[in-house]
Amino acid sequence: MRLERAKGTEDYPPEKKILRDEVVRTLMRVFEKYGFDPLETPILERYETLSAKYAGGAEILKETFKLKDQGNRNLGLRYDLTVPLARFIAMNPQISFPFKRYQIEKVFRDGPVTKARIREFWQCDVDIVGSKSILADVELIQLALDVLKALQLKCAIKVNNRKLLNEIMEYADVKDPDSAILGIDKLYKIGEGGVEKELQEKKLSKEQIKKIMEIISVRGSNKEKLDKIQKKIDKEGIKELREILKYFNEDVEFDPALARGLSYYTGMVFEIVLKNKSLGCSLGGGGRYDNMIGSFAGRGEIPATGISFGLEPLTLVLSQRKTKKTNVQVFIVPIKTTSKSLAIAKKLRDAGIKTDIDLIDRSISKNLNYANKKEIPYVLFIGEKELKLKKIKIRDMKSGNEKLLSLSEVIKKIKKKD
Amino acid sequence: MRLERAKGTEDYPPEKKILRDEVVRTLMRVFEKYGFDPLETPILERYETLSAKYAGGAEILKETFKLKDQGNRNLGLRYDLTVPLARFIAMNPQISFPFKRYQIEKVFRDGPVTKARIREFWQCDVDIVGSKSILADVELIQLALDVLKALQLKCAIKVNNRKLLNEIMEYADVKDPDSAILGIDKLYKIGEGGVEKELQEKKLSKEQIKKIMEIISVRGSNKEKLDKIQKKIDKEGIKELREILKYFNEDVEFDPALARGLSYYTGMVFEIVLKNKSLGCSLGGGGRYDNMIGSFAGRGEIPATGISFGLEPLTLVLSQRKTKKTNVQVFIVPIKTTSKSLAIAKKLRDAGIKTDIDLIDRSISKNLNYANKKEIPYVLFIGEKELKLKKIKIRDMKSGNEKLLSLSEVIKKIKKKD
Repeated sequence: MRLERAKGTEDYPPEKKILRDEVVRTLMRVFEKYGFDPLETPILERYETLSAKYAGGAEILKETFKLKDQGNRNLGLRYDLTVPLARFIAMNPQISFPFKRYQIEKVFRDGPVTKARIREFWQCDVDIVGSKSILADVELIQLALDVLKALQLKCAIKVNNRKLLNEIMEYADVKDPDSAILGIDKLYKIGEGGVEKELQEKKLSKEQIKKIMEIISVRGSNKEKLDKIQKKIDKEGIKELREILKYFNEDVEFDPALARGLSYYTGMVFEIVLKNKSLGCSLGGGGRYDNMIGSFAGRGEIPATGISFGLEPLTLVLSQRKTKKTNVQVFIVPIKTTSKSLAIAKKLRDAGIKTDIDLIDRSISKNLNYANKKEIPYVLFIGEKELKLKKIKIRDMKSGNEKLLSLSEVIKKIKKKD
Repeated sequence: MRLERAKGTEDYPPEKKILRDEVVRTLMRVFEKYGFDPLETPILERYETLSAKYAGGAEILKETFKLKDQGNRNLGLRYDLTVPLARFIAMNPQISFPFKRYQIEKVFRDGPVTKARIREFWQCDVDIVGSKSILADVELIQLALDVLKALQLKCAIKVNNRKLLNEIMEYADVKDPDSAILGIDKLYKIGEGGVEKELQEKKLSKEQIKKIMEIISVRGSNKEKLDKIQKKIDKEGIKELREILKYFNEDVEFDPALARGLSYYTGMVFEIVLKNKSLGCSLGGGGRYDNMIGSFAGRGEIPATGISFGLEPLTLVLSQRKTKKTNVQVFIVPIKTTSKSLAIAKKLRDAGIKTDIDLIDRSISKNLNYANKKEIPYVLFIGEKELKLKKIKIRDMKSGNEKLLSLSEVIKKIKKKD
């Protein structure tokens, strides 16, 4: 038998999973501070839901894992958390708006596999459903800044507005705006020359391309860029951008070329980009999508705005820092004192200390090797002689120092380190 | 378009998901106190792995969701977390034993749907790989008792040993012990008469059935039951049970009829049963399986023992208690003070308080209705008049009392309640 994982999937052993859990806890803490509550929806969705015309679109559907249950029903593994949210809102008309939910769960895409792109991965989404107000968009950007601060990541947040992009297309008299916008979206990757070539291929005239490039390549501060563009296009897009950007300094950067692929966006779009570009992918992004949920629900417009962080790119960046190999705080080596040592382990655990104990009766040196390899900070040696003195020998694995302490002193020492 | 979930799946809106998260956090806290570290493995596994002959067995394979990726590879959704653990250990020979891991993740079974049995559910597993010692089994039972204590659940833990069951079969000279053991396992459900009938159907003689029933229906304390059985069968099973049970009082109940279906168990087996039987299903269970992982790895015996809690039955029981509908601690109603109110929201959030704010400019009474419906404990009214006095009006939503407080007094008050 071949021992392999399914293609495009990963195992996360403790030394990786501990970091992932830390990131998830940080995200949850920030999400909850902003008043978002948790939601869980299933991984299995009816294929009809995933393939609804106002859902993810043809590109993403090509990468959807399809399957059937024993009743021959067509199912799929969800490819994002937005379509399930729309399905959930549509099925629950009693929900009061705004509905602010977060969801940190797995999604699946059967696409090409690279280091940064696997087939089973986590999305960490927050969405505000039922508010058309720009304040909802502002709140999401504040939240994103807070997430980056909590994770001590140096990132730029790029912001744009789909309305401006459509207005640019109108201004340049472009017939198929969606296709041209997808070309512009690549500016960051392929540069100005690349975008011009893309637009030529899309049959735009020299004049049209010139008009577009003049706008999307403006330079300067946010205010300068807004001013320059407003001279040519003074419409809704610029107005909303001014309204949003007044809440932020230059950490939030207005980028008139940002479009964020998906066609369902209707207003503000934004993306979180590492200042050090080595990773070559964004850590998250989002935007406003005022039509999608209402189309699912079939009861008028239900405005929504959201943001999605990728757990894999976040942990990939953070893993370059020093991370813990184990959560265990102390390892007990009983020296012919098994049942008394178990009782001491119980007391440490009752005090909230993460305690492991030798379960295979190894020699002292083998136990030390084990604790050392796992990077457990303290080892306790529990022998009859020490027990008579009501003392325990504690070894600091980093310094090698050993001390005889009472149980309560041991507890205090370990807790202090934590 | 029909708005439906996939059959046998559930949504968990905030009022349910908050409880689930609480249970998961409690489990993690206890698991980590016992020295277990987290592991994550994929939901998608190669079908060859899931269908290996030493894996879950034919019954469970019938309920496995099968699918293919675009490369036409045969995949399945995992039906438990034990087979992926075995695959992981087999692929990572560098891991030091004992390897103590926990894993709280989704599994899938395409079987009949009932209230207590759905197709996509969470298992919460702890396993100790690489220790043959009875101390590992003892540690798992201690952990299970601690989980029940932390969740304030009144349960009995039933314990038995597969060796004893095999020895009973030998003692009664039964030719197909596995089949007879599955019959005995139903004692709790179908009673003594039912088991006798089952064994008759399995072609056991009257004499054989009498011998078996005499043993599995012994009454009394753990010690009395062990003594009575030992008079007839004085072998390994009883010896190991004595060794384990000496660490516990009668909260852990020796039940000579407990087998726990799966054929891969080789030693201690146990199950957590509610004292109030209304739920009709167990909250978890486990046992020792010394052969399975080694068979996967193809490198000799790799002993293992583990326990699995079901998140769904745990939350089903706990949901009968009063639960929180939201994590939000305070809701801000700006009265023509939007941008100043946002600044105050930021300060509350920086102080770690879970803060929501009106994002759709509703009337005061609509905002109060919203906060009331969501059971948010406090509402803040922020008006120009109060801001001039450097005060905020805070309303306790339960009592209806309102007070004018400074921001720092507000923070103190809300934190005190938490």
